[in-house]
Amino acid sequence: MTNQKWLDEINWNTDGLVPVIAKDISTGKVLMHAWMNREALSNTAETRQAVYWSRSRRQLWRKGEQSGHVQHVKEIRLDCDADAILLVVDQEGGIACHTGRQSCFFRKLQDKQWRIVDQVIKDPSEIYGKSGD
Amino acid sequence: MTNQKWLDEINWNTDGLVPVIAKDISTGKVLMHAWMNREALSNTAETRQAVYWSRSRRQLWRKGEQSGHVQHVKEIRLDCDADAILLVVDQEGGIACHTGRQSCFFRKLQDKQWRIVDQVIKDPSEIYGKSGD
Repeated sequence: MTNQKWLDEINWNTDGLVPVIAKDISTGKVLMHAWMNREALSNTAETRQAVYWSRSRRQLWRKGEQSGHVQHVKEIRLDCDADAILLVVDQEGGIACHTGRQSCFFRKLQDKQWRIVDQVIKDPSEIYGKSGD
Repeated sequence: MTNQKWLDEINWNTDGLVPVIAKDISTGKVLMHAWMNREALSNTAETRQAVYWSRSRRQLWRKGEQSGHVQHVKEIRLDCDADAILLVVDQEGGIACHTGRQSCFFRKLQDKQWRIVDQVIKDPSEIYGKSGD
């Protein structure tokens, strides 16, 4: 770890996290919204594979470690306020969501109800056995 | 306000906010990352124009109120954990960022530096006079 200035330029929140959007390079779809701490982002930049911070498990979460649905990082972008990150990724398996869908944003507001509008590509039990990603 | 169940289904954070991604319907670009409280989201759904919560100003922020760069909301989506929102918008003026760029994510990590890779479309002083959006 030599030059860490780029990490210092990020406005980490009070928990030391930054929100991250992952977008698919081939379909252009927004795949997911997650969080990174400094180590996760540093690790992501080094390995060019997305590593997030799991707030529920309170640990680093290498995307695809269980599912195989690794995200190969093509671009890392920072917004104007330096408080949000955009990853452009090549999504292995074409599935980012633990429900077996391409994107986590599979519910659309229609008539004041969240309706599922995107199909499951692969059954989660086939992806994970019994545990989640 | 009759049916508010869809708002109750959101996992608001401890500040009563949810992160929101805005994506442009015509270019597919991720335009910005912002926050909404319950009132902002309710208002966005009613008016079909994006209303955010400004954490710095601690008030509702109707996108485009100063700049004219209103976001006409075509889709409102919710993610699998119900803790992030995706808006698909028609961005008036083709400019979402207060720097006069299409997207707020105009800096890309290259050689451990954040480099500006997207052009200013319109000078902010022409957009706002002196204040920001």
